[in-house]
Formats: sequence, C-alpha cells, structure tokens
Amino acid sequence: MAFKTLGAKAAAALDKELMSSGAFSLDQLMELAGLSVSQVVYRVHPITKGPKILVAVGPGNNGGDGLVAARHLRHYGYQPTIYYPKRPKNELYQRLTKQLEDLNIPFVDDFPDALKSADHVLDAIFGFSFSGEVREPFPAVINAMAETKIPVTSVDAPSSWNIEDGPPSEGVGSNFHPDVLISLTAPKPLVKHFKGLHFIGGRFVAPSIAKKYDFDVPEYEGLDQIVEVEAAGQKL
Amino acid sequence: MAFKTLGAKAAAALDKELMSSGAFSLDQLMELAGLSVSQVVYRVHPITKGPKILVAVGPGNNGGDGLVAARHLRHYGYQPTIYYPKRPKNELYQRLTKQLEDLNIPFVDDFPDALKSADHVLDAIFGFSFSGEVREPFPAVINAMAETKIPVTSVDAPSSWNIEDGPPSEGVGSNFHPDVLISLTAPKPLVKHFKGLHFIGGRFVAPSIAKKYDFDVPEYEGLDQIVEVEAAGQKL
Repeated sequence: MAFKTLGAKAAAALDKELMSSGAFSLDQLMELAGLSVSQVVYRVHPITKGPKILVAVGPGNNGGDGLVAARHLRHYGYQPTIYYPKRPKNELYQRLTKQLEDLNIPFVDDFPDALKSADHVLDAIFGFSFSGEVREPFPAVINAMAETKIPVTSVDAPSSWNIEDGPPSEGVGSNFHPDVLISLTAPKPLVKHFKGLHFIGGRFVAPSIAKKYDFDVPEYEGLDQIVEVEAAGQKL
Repeated sequence: MAFKTLGAKAAAALDKELMSSGAFSLDQLMELAGLSVSQVVYRVHPITKGPKILVAVGPGNNGGDGLVAARHLRHYGYQPTIYYPKRPKNELYQRLTKQLEDLNIPFVDDFPDALKSADHVLDAIFGFSFSGEVREPFPAVINAMAETKIPVTSVDAPSSWNIEDGPPSEGVGSNFHPDVLISLTAPKPLVKHFKGLHFIGGRFVAPSIAKKYDFDVPEYEGLDQIVEVEAAGQKL
C-alpha cells in the first residue's frame, strides 16, 4: 500500500489550516502528536528492552513533539533524559519543559556522553520545516545518532534530511539512517529513501481536510494513535 | 484498595495549580481528560455493542471533556451525537465544537428523542464544580438518563449529585445511578455512594503534585490513560 506524501509547503499549509479553520490549538495538536510518538517508542522499544530514552530536542515544533512524548514515556515508566540545547522563549515550550522538570526528568548538555548510557534515542530535532544547513550544535548530535548502535526513532523526518529529497549526498546526515520513523498526519516525500520501520501518527485529521490536501487517513486500529505502514523505501 | 478522595474545593485548587505552577494549559488538560473518557467508553461499550453514543454536554469544563471524548470516539469509528443546549462564548468550547462539526457529528436539540436511538449515553453535564440546583434545561435530561435502560457513563460525577454527599435525597437526580463513572485525576467524595464500574483517568499528574494534594496516582498499565478501580460504594 503506497501512501501519498505531503511536501514541505503542503505540510506547512495543512498545519496552518488545522489551526485556523480546523480550530485546533497548537497545544492540542502537539499533545496528540507527542502522544503518537510515545506510542511508537512503546511499540518498537518495550520497556523491558531498557527504560532509558535519550530525547534530542530541536528548537521548533518537532522539538515540542519530543517534549510531550518524553512526558508520556515517563508516565509509562520509562526514564527519559532530555538534550535541549536551543530553547526558544516561546511560552508553550517553556511550559512543556516545566512539566518535565516536575517529573524530575534530567536535562543534559553533553549528547554523546548521554548516549553512552541510553537504550533508545528519540530524534526530535528537525521536522518538515527544516531546510538548508544543520546549524550548531546539532552536527555533532546527528553524527552521533548516525554512528550509534542504539536504535533511533525519528519524528516526522530524520533530522538533516531534505524533506523532498531525503538524505544529503555528503556531509552531516549523509550517513544517518534511523531505525524507525513516525510520519505525523502524512508521510513526507523523503520516505522514499527510508528503509526502516515506518509509522503514521496523529489521529485527529478530519477526512474532509485530508481530502483537500490529497492524502490518505490510514486505518488506525482500536484506540491506537499510530499505525505501522510499509516503508516506501522498502520497495526501491 | 481504597482510594483517597478529593473534595470540591481541593479539586478546584488542584486544577488551578496544574494550570499555574504545573504549567499545563486548559487545552492540554481537556485533551487528556477527554481522551481518558473516550477510552472508558471504548472499554465498557465496545463498538460491536452499538456505535451510537449520545453525549450530553454541560456549559463548563465537564462539557468540554465530553466534546473532546466525542471527537476521539468518532475517530475510533463510533457515531456520536451531541446535545449541547447551553454554549458559552468561550473560545475553547467554540473550537472544540467546530472540530466536531468538521467530522460531520450531528448536534441535536431534543435529548429524550435522541435517546430513543442511542446505544450508550455519556453524561458530561456537570463536574466537580457543580453545587446547588440543576437548572433548565437539564432536569429533564437527568430524569431521562435516570429512567433509560441504555447504559450511562458519567464524567467525574453523576450530574446532579452533590460532590461531597452524593445523590440528592429528593427531586432531580435522586434516582440517577449511572452504570459507569470515570473520576478525573482522583475520585470525589461522592464515589462512596456509587456502585457501578469505576475508573480513574487523567494520566498526567506528577507524583509531587499528587502528594501535595494527598491523593494516590493509580497504577496505570501499558499505554492506558485509564484504570479500573473498585467502586467505593461496593463496600458499603
């Protein structure tokens, strides 16, 4: 089953529409997106495989999804650790951060060091709005995620990948191939280069909106906020 | 296992604290509360028992939880119908209403009539801030819920019950005994009069906050946002 993809511009327009005529608040969407992400980690990395989840958090909404996921994972019994080097002054991110602090979740400054004791990594650095070059301090983080033997789950996009074209041909990210990807609302074109486990999450899109943006709402099961789909890259 | 209860004043103070020092927004809390409610309905009334859920929505936050639950239930495949006679101008409730309209969920004006074709009723009229008399147009709704043979699930409190003392000794609500109750964050004192299936939901309270308010965070399982607990009334 091939899923239609949503390019960077269409994904931005969809987000904007969900928050205008769709009447969702960013708080709501981020809560549901982060919940989906936490369910993917629970599915691919049960707590019995090791409770320590290192979450790499970027400066934008992708990072916010990671903060929400970390909170849910903590409630499931995991032990998340947060690497969050660039913190915007935005009030929502400050609140999500405070919620993690209240759960005694540690924030760390040295990503490669924290990686040594992690069981699983959540890559919530860049999402569909990423383009251009990876700025400091993230090149070393992406290199570390590319080289580690610990499984990595990426949120919406493997960070550093071009949303349309996939992994860069050289430099930072060219050798970064995460094990798991969760596409939020709809896969982005980069999925054709992805060969790992692929999920779609974000069970909140009305069929009328999906139709307008010409993508498919997948068949979720039961209470699941996520569904595993065939990675497009597996067909290459 | 007896759970500590949270009186009306303490529940109001907890809500206030979650949204101040706890750094949650009302959007976030309502999304998670409504998600819990939807999971209870899914548990006690699987879709195979009938997809038609009639949701009675009150004018405050309890009603907001019902609106969120209806949206999730729609995504699970149920066919909710909404009775929402008193709609505050509050922007959040208007947005939650629009989200349901976008899913083509019908809003009805005649509750007793809608009840005739419903398979399950969700009572989201009044929550922990209710006191005093049941105002129009809700007396007839509560009477209808008291008399129906269709199972009723109440959110946080059986509507019309006094939060501390339980069902009124006479008049509206004196004969209202819903089949299922979901207590949000912690049971209210009225649970000692409740004899049906009892759940706790709202998996977002930090242990430090629960400790401050002297209630227990229940042992949730897996990804569940709800947990079934023994109804205190069963011990009477």
